[in-house]
Amino acid sequence: MTAAYNDFSGQNAERVRALSDGVFAVAMTLLVLEIRLPLSEGGLTNHELWSELVDLGPRLAAYLLSFTMLGTFWLAQHTLLGLTDRSNRSLSWANLFFLLFVTTLPFTASVLAEHPHLSLAVGVYWLNLALLGLTLAGCVWRTARGGLVPEGHRDQLAIFGRRIALAQGLYAAAALLALVSPPTSIAALAVVQLFFVVAPRLGRVA
Amino acid sequence: MTAAYNDFSGQNAERVRALSDGVFAVAMTLLVLEIRLPLSEGGLTNHELWSELVDLGPRLAAYLLSFTMLGTFWLAQHTLLGLTDRSNRSLSWANLFFLLFVTTLPFTASVLAEHPHLSLAVGVYWLNLALLGLTLAGCVWRTARGGLVPEGHRDQLAIFGRRIALAQGLYAAAALLALVSPPTSIAALAVVQLFFVVAPRLGRVA
Amino acid sequence: MTAAYNDFSGQNAERVRALSDGVFAVAMTLLVLEIRLPLSEGGLTNHELWSELVDLGPRLAAYLLSFTMLGTFWLAQHTLLGLTDRSNRSLSWANLFFLLFVTTLPFTASVLAEHPHLSLAVGVYWLNLALLGLTLAGCVWRTARGGLVPEGHRDQLAIFGRRIALAQGLYAAAALLALVSPPTSIAALAVVQLFFVVAPRLGRVA
Amino acid sequence: MTAAYNDFSGQNAERVRALSDGVFAVAMTLLVLEIRLPLSEGGLTNHELWSELVDLGPRLAAYLLSFTMLGTFWLAQHTLLGLTDRSNRSLSWANLFFLLFVTTLPFTASVLAEHPHLSLAVGVYWLNLALLGLTLAGCVWRTARGGLVPEGHRDQLAIFGRRIALAQGLYAAAALLALVSPPTSIAALAVVQLFFVVAPRLGRVA
Repeated sequence: MTAAYNDFSGQNAERVRALSDGVFAVAMTLLVLEIRLPLSEGGLTNHELWSELVDLGPRLAAYLLSFTMLGTFWLAQHTLLGLTDRSNRSLSWANLFFLLFVTTLPFTASVLAEHPHLSLAVGVYWLNLALLGLTLAGCVWRTARGGLVPEGHRDQLAIFGRRIALAQGLYAAAALLALVSPPTSIAALAVVQLFFVVAPRLGRVA
Repeated sequence: MTAAYNDFSGQNAERVRALSDGVFAVAMTLLVLEIRLPLSEGGLTNHELWSELVDLGPRLAAYLLSFTMLGTFWLAQHTLLGLTDRSNRSLSWANLFFLLFVTTLPFTASVLAEHPHLSLAVGVYWLNLALLGLTLAGCVWRTARGGLVPEGHRDQLAIFGRRIALAQGLYAAAALLALVSPPTSIAALAVVQLFFVVAPRLGRVA
Repeated sequence: MTAAYNDFSGQNAERVRALSDGVFAVAMTLLVLEIRLPLSEGGLTNHELWSELVDLGPRLAAYLLSFTMLGTFWLAQHTLLGLTDRSNRSLSWANLFFLLFVTTLPFTASVLAEHPHLSLAVGVYWLNLALLGLTLAGCVWRTARGGLVPEGHRDQLAIFGRRIALAQGLYAAAALLALVSPPTSIAALAVVQLFFVVAPRLGRVA
Repeated sequence: MTAAYNDFSGQNAERVRALSDGVFAVAMTLLVLEIRLPLSEGGLTNHELWSELVDLGPRLAAYLLSFTMLGTFWLAQHTLLGLTDRSNRSLSWANLFFLLFVTTLPFTASVLAEHPHLSLAVGVYWLNLALLGLTLAGCVWRTARGGLVPEGHRDQLAIFGRRIALAQGLYAAAALLALVSPPTSIAALAVVQLFFVVAPRLGRVA
């Protein structure tokens, strides 16, 4: 009975895409809930409001970093699911675990924003990135194993896998710097992230 | 007039799917809002942050359990709506009641996370699972009764119904253990849940 | 230039549907955020947890009422947009104003849940329902005026309009009772709501 | 390798649309979370509730303004993406940065609602609008440069760009008034906004 259920369960790639877009949309928007002015009695001057905004700087930086992280992973999953027009139960579950670590990013980002001077905070944030990479690799594996990608797109799956490995290697190297200096480590994560957003475009022009 | 309205109301299965994906996405992401560090003055050490993270353990466990529960029910509803490409007013309402109990899971999960030693907390959580099962069965019944499934898929509807009964039987048995020991009952729910995520894959391999 | 822009703006009915499903999904799930246990030190007994849950009764009732309200309006808009496969700029804006009052329902529902004994609270809640009805009627009008509905579906648009008028008449009558007794008025709203969920099915059987 | 990845990355315009609808839906609904009654002990009179509601007036006005802003930008992006049925990696990123400033609007709107008498608060809010305009223009540029729009729709892209410039010019002029009087500046923003919602319809009639 179980096997039979699995044969017709979770086939619709559109549903997998729609749930994923929903989870990413909510996670991206919830990130910003961390950015709030302190409660005030009103009656501030421009100068006082300016200091409050400046104090939000680190949170804003953590927000920008995490938003582009979510953007990168969204684009990656968008690309992966674009290689197939079918799903199956295994890919659906692999994708659910990927989404699980999308939903935890607002939490780990807030840990980082509150304690940017602690190596443990960088470690927690990096662990979230690593689990996103691992579960995304799980999605690639399930897509390959389930024969969901047409013959002509197999190469793209391999390119995709190598790109995940490259990204995770760079994230891990940046995170390791936290043992020496957590702020440097965060800056390195931001530079790696900038590379993934900007550099590939330069490559395109070249 | 009412009957006439009903004849053209709620026909679009895509809308039912899209609303469902949205509700699941928001509920899955809101679950994580329960996981927060206590407000601190900053200036923690790695050691203090570690203790705060360890204290979040039970909430994190409740989160993981509830996320996979929502994943299971999402996959089930995804599978059910995959059997039909039409909807009607009755199925739309049955699905709305199913979604109602999706939205309450973040609340009942927080009751469980705050009071894991109370049998009443397990009871509240189980009641939510039972109502999810009952309303999902209502969706199956409305799909069958409305003639929305093509002839060749009727068997799958029966398999689906038996699977809901099996899952609910196991959840109820696990929840009953709360009369003896609430933590054991929660562990049993987790084991049942693990079975639904992992075991069917083993069955697939066999 | 403006007229030209309007000629190609907001044409995609799928986008209007997707935004609407998203707004309804978030609003339905946010409603439940109002239902929370009071912060406790842990160490409650089953008996104490039970009293806390009983105290949440009025909020739970307000939640159920508002969820079915949103369900009714979602189903109505789903039905309306099911009559057309095109949109235009005017319908897009009419629908945005309808969604505006979807997003305010969690607020007006919390006013009702906190002050069920005040006629003003019932009035605020009713005003939200009336504005939902009015803006939905605006969507009907824009759909008719824009020639978006094929010839054969014009009757359905008229039936639809009469149904909105009937519902709003009943809501207004129920709300008027608040001048005598707010709790009776809320009960009357619930009965009207029950009629829209259940009675049409009876009519269908008949 | 990077170039090769880019060649098949982010192609699906449906995913870009779905993520955007999700982000707009969440942002629109989160705006309303700023509107809350003060915590009370219950037992208010109608008169006391009325004063509390009146006190929410400025927040409600900021909400209405920001909701129609998001509506305008949603409609604009809806129109832009309606000109193409393909996407690419560059457009996906340009759109992600546009969505970034959609998610920050609930924050900048709350700054405006709390400090409507400060020119800096108007400045922060205007900066958000300007960044929305800039990133939307980036989407137009990426769409044009990527050859994503069929030959016959190139004119519409130019009209679109001029409309963004017009809107941003009016927003900037309204915001500049904040140097003299912040409340006047907010009123001017509302008038400009009203023009974009209402006036184009008049133009349509004419």
